[in-house]
Amino acid sequence: MNCCILGAGAWGTAMALHLDRCGHSVTLVPRRMEHALSIASSRENSDYLPGYKLPHRIQIGYEIGPVLMEADVVFFACPSKAIRDLAGKVRPHLEAARQLKLCLVMCKGLELDSFKAPAEILEESLPGLHCGVLSGPTYAGEVAAGQPTAVVLALPRGLEDGNRYQEAFSNSSMRCYLSHDVRGTELGGTLKNIYAIGSGICDGLKLGDNAKAAYLTRSLNELLALGTSLGGQADTFYGLSGFGDLIATCTGAWSRNRTFGEKVGEGEAPESIIENQKTVVEGYRATECLYRYCRQQKIDAPILGTIHAVLYEALNPEEGIQALMRRNLKAE
Amino acid sequence: MNCCILGAGAWGTAMALHLDRCGHSVTLVPRRMEHALSIASSRENSDYLPGYKLPHRIQIGYEIGPVLMEADVVFFACPSKAIRDLAGKVRPHLEAARQLKLCLVMCKGLELDSFKAPAEILEESLPGLHCGVLSGPTYAGEVAAGQPTAVVLALPRGLEDGNRYQEAFSNSSMRCYLSHDVRGTELGGTLKNIYAIGSGICDGLKLGDNAKAAYLTRSLNELLALGTSLGGQADTFYGLSGFGDLIATCTGAWSRNRTFGEKVGEGEAPESIIENQKTVVEGYRATECLYRYCRQQKIDAPILGTIHAVLYEALNPEEGIQALMRRNLKAE
Repeated sequence: MNCCILGAGAWGTAMALHLDRCGHSVTLVPRRMEHALSIASSRENSDYLPGYKLPHRIQIGYEIGPVLMEADVVFFACPSKAIRDLAGKVRPHLEAARQLKLCLVMCKGLELDSFKAPAEILEESLPGLHCGVLSGPTYAGEVAAGQPTAVVLALPRGLEDGNRYQEAFSNSSMRCYLSHDVRGTELGGTLKNIYAIGSGICDGLKLGDNAKAAYLTRSLNELLALGTSLGGQADTFYGLSGFGDLIATCTGAWSRNRTFGEKVGEGEAPESIIENQKTVVEGYRATECLYRYCRQQKIDAPILGTIHAVLYEALNPEEGIQALMRRNLKAE
Repeated sequence: MNCCILGAGAWGTAMALHLDRCGHSVTLVPRRMEHALSIASSRENSDYLPGYKLPHRIQIGYEIGPVLMEADVVFFACPSKAIRDLAGKVRPHLEAARQLKLCLVMCKGLELDSFKAPAEILEESLPGLHCGVLSGPTYAGEVAAGQPTAVVLALPRGLEDGNRYQEAFSNSSMRCYLSHDVRGTELGGTLKNIYAIGSGICDGLKLGDNAKAAYLTRSLNELLALGTSLGGQADTFYGLSGFGDLIATCTGAWSRNRTFGEKVGEGEAPESIIENQKTVVEGYRATECLYRYCRQQKIDAPILGTIHAVLYEALNPEEGIQALMRRNLKAE
């Protein structure tokens, strides 16, 4: 297949390597011209995924139009807040993109006031295309290194031949599990970023493993309640894109969201961390977005509320977590 | 309340400290006379929980009879395979134990051929007493240090005043959540020990965080299927004594079961590790027990089967995990 990846962050670049290993023709399209030139000349994405050489088979593109003309599948590997803009840049080239059938979202987040997930935004913006999502516990470095990884490939029911894509994107290192719950799969990834921040706060406060396990247990429950109220299926959240991604993000050393929370727990100011960070902390914005949603829908989500208060209302992290622990004793 | 703790391993000793801080009269009863004498003279359990002084308020007992005469609650903090024996030692003193109403299990495991959980064995052996369980993610050192911890207190429905016990055993550090699913709570703890060994094997093989998250996701699903088939409630397994304990055991540095698995993953022979270990690896026996159960009931549990083959049939750990990863691609 001809695969086009829009966005050359760590994850987009790792996916380019993976798809190349699966035998596909791959074009990686960075957002910035200078970045494209740098990768094309050094054959390495030294900004976001240093240490992995890109084989010459992987093409580096910049103009979207010519790339789309050849593409069978487009992967959207931009930050979630850029998805509507990027879709707007793709749209004018759709008519010439004769082979293009499927768009796959690789980012995690919701639009701030519409509460729409990226695949929904793509569906609105790119009529005639099928829009799915690829999600799960996927540290880019491990994918690039070919270490074992399992992901969810959530495809809309209208798309025939889902198994063909599943097989095309799987090899002995990365296994794709098929789902039809596109919305739930997107929500799982978005929500876990929020709870990963709280997990980092627990780490920063050095609360210990018992407290963290208790925190994560309550978080999975809240994630499930919120996710189903937003239209996802419960089973999805117990799978790779909910539970699995939550575990990886909350325990692995790699997660930006967890690391961000850890700094907050240690006393750094959230805003200044965000300002000084080169990469995107999706959970920061997702916290604001979901907090608004819960207020609007009158949903009680005490963990989310605490994280929001710590990040946006200068609540002391230790007081916040202690208040969560002190909540009325009740049945689980 | 008068609380008696039978067994002075790390967890029993930590619980003695916790109950003392809650304001109860506590008697800790080690199995061996020499151990009792050592703790009584040094006021420290240097064998299993070094570094924590036991206040003189905590009594060290040895003869079960006199201790039980005063007790309101007895905590069984022995290894699971010793529970039937210990119950046999308690039974002759029941008539004189006028205040005694409640027994609480603190160990995790099933009896090898009957597949009975400790609370069931106590119920059989100690007629007239209510038998419950205290379980969840509880590293003894953190409990002893007064770090935040949340546990499940599962009490049989027949016991009135469950809330009274819940409040009595909770303070600002340790919170008890009440459940009535005694069987499920016991099963959660037993099953997670098995999957913790597999998680350690992943660590020993250095498979990475993506693989471990995928492993744990599939493990939670298998744990749930097995646990419900054995009579536990699904919600219990998604709570502290299933999901929470699984996370703590599989990611914390403290777990004996995870550490055991890690050594197996690194190539050590399972039997020789067990032989040279002072403390009990409950998951080793639980694997054998649950494997027999699945064979008898014709239940397909591929992860359990793989762990069993690695531990008892000399399957190479890397081959075992690879075979798990290669299983047919299918919907989650």
